[in-house]
Amino acid sequence: MQEKVISLKGVQDYYPDHFGQCYGCGRLNEFGHQLKTNWDSDETVTFFTSKHFHTAIPGFVYGGLLASIMDCHGTGSAALALARAHGIELEEYNAPRCVTASLKIDYKKPTPIDTLLEIRGIIREIKGRKVVVEARLIANGEICVTGEIIAVQVSDDVGK
Amino acid sequence: MQEKVISLKGVQDYYPDHFGQCYGCGRLNEFGHQLKTNWDSDETVTFFTSKHFHTAIPGFVYGGLLASIMDCHGTGSAALALARAHGIELEEYNAPRCVTASLKIDYKKPTPIDTLLEIRGIIREIKGRKVVVEARLIANGEICVTGEIIAVQVSDDVGK
Repeated sequence: MQEKVISLKGVQDYYPDHFGQCYGCGRLNEFGHQLKTNWDSDETVTFFTSKHFHTAIPGFVYGGLLASIMDCHGTGSAALALARAHGIELEEYNAPRCVTASLKIDYKKPTPIDTLLEIRGIIREIKGRKVVVEARLIANGEICVTGEIIAVQVSDDVGK
Repeated sequence: MQEKVISLKGVQDYYPDHFGQCYGCGRLNEFGHQLKTNWDSDETVTFFTSKHFHTAIPGFVYGGLLASIMDCHGTGSAALALARAHGIELEEYNAPRCVTASLKIDYKKPTPIDTLLEIRGIIREIKGRKVVVEARLIANGEICVTGEIIAVQVSDDVGK
């Protein structure tokens, strides 16, 4: 098995506080999923394990949740990409913050529940404030979901 | 204000038990959103109010959750469409059950939190087991999210 060293912190730990409330990935949302997105070489990666009640049909993960984590992985990946593109070294709390403009998800096969899910992203385009991320979700070595997220950086004072 | 009579039951109340576990719309998932999808003339409709912690950026609903409820509204709408197309009068528990093959979501404007959300669907195509649903999400009279869901009917014994 390939060894991977993944930081326990994600880009989400470097958002200013008012950007840290997201249900999907905000470090300050105690009810949320608190996803952590990191670089793994030139790809981005997020890990997630669903709860037993995140069911679609018994045995499989609810597609809406999968769309959610693909979405948050996309905005996190876009933030990482913008930081790298602009030479920003991440520290508390200077990460750029993106929101999703559009999301396209294809469910290739049912995603098994109670399994570690790995969501990986490839940065396809950076154009000004817009970032296009291609993402795939892997369970037990198989790609179950693919998608494309178009994310847009928001001004630092939005939602303040 | 236009008067609307919406049944308290949705198509989700007519799925067999093993199809009623969905986190988004299963009547038997006590942790889930328990969405109810109905006909309103030739459109389908689902209502939803997010919780205070379903935040994206403060004041606005998390996009992943919006994708989730568009998704479940899509599969519910597809089930209604198949039932109508095949002359099935819904009773306990004979509703067809669909899953999502693909989902396309466009976020047109931020969706305000703590507001009743209305999700409406138009059946664009029925072809065998496949149904294409065009959906829009409305808050305070404004369309905030649009999308297309391609749903596919599953066999009754899946997940049994």
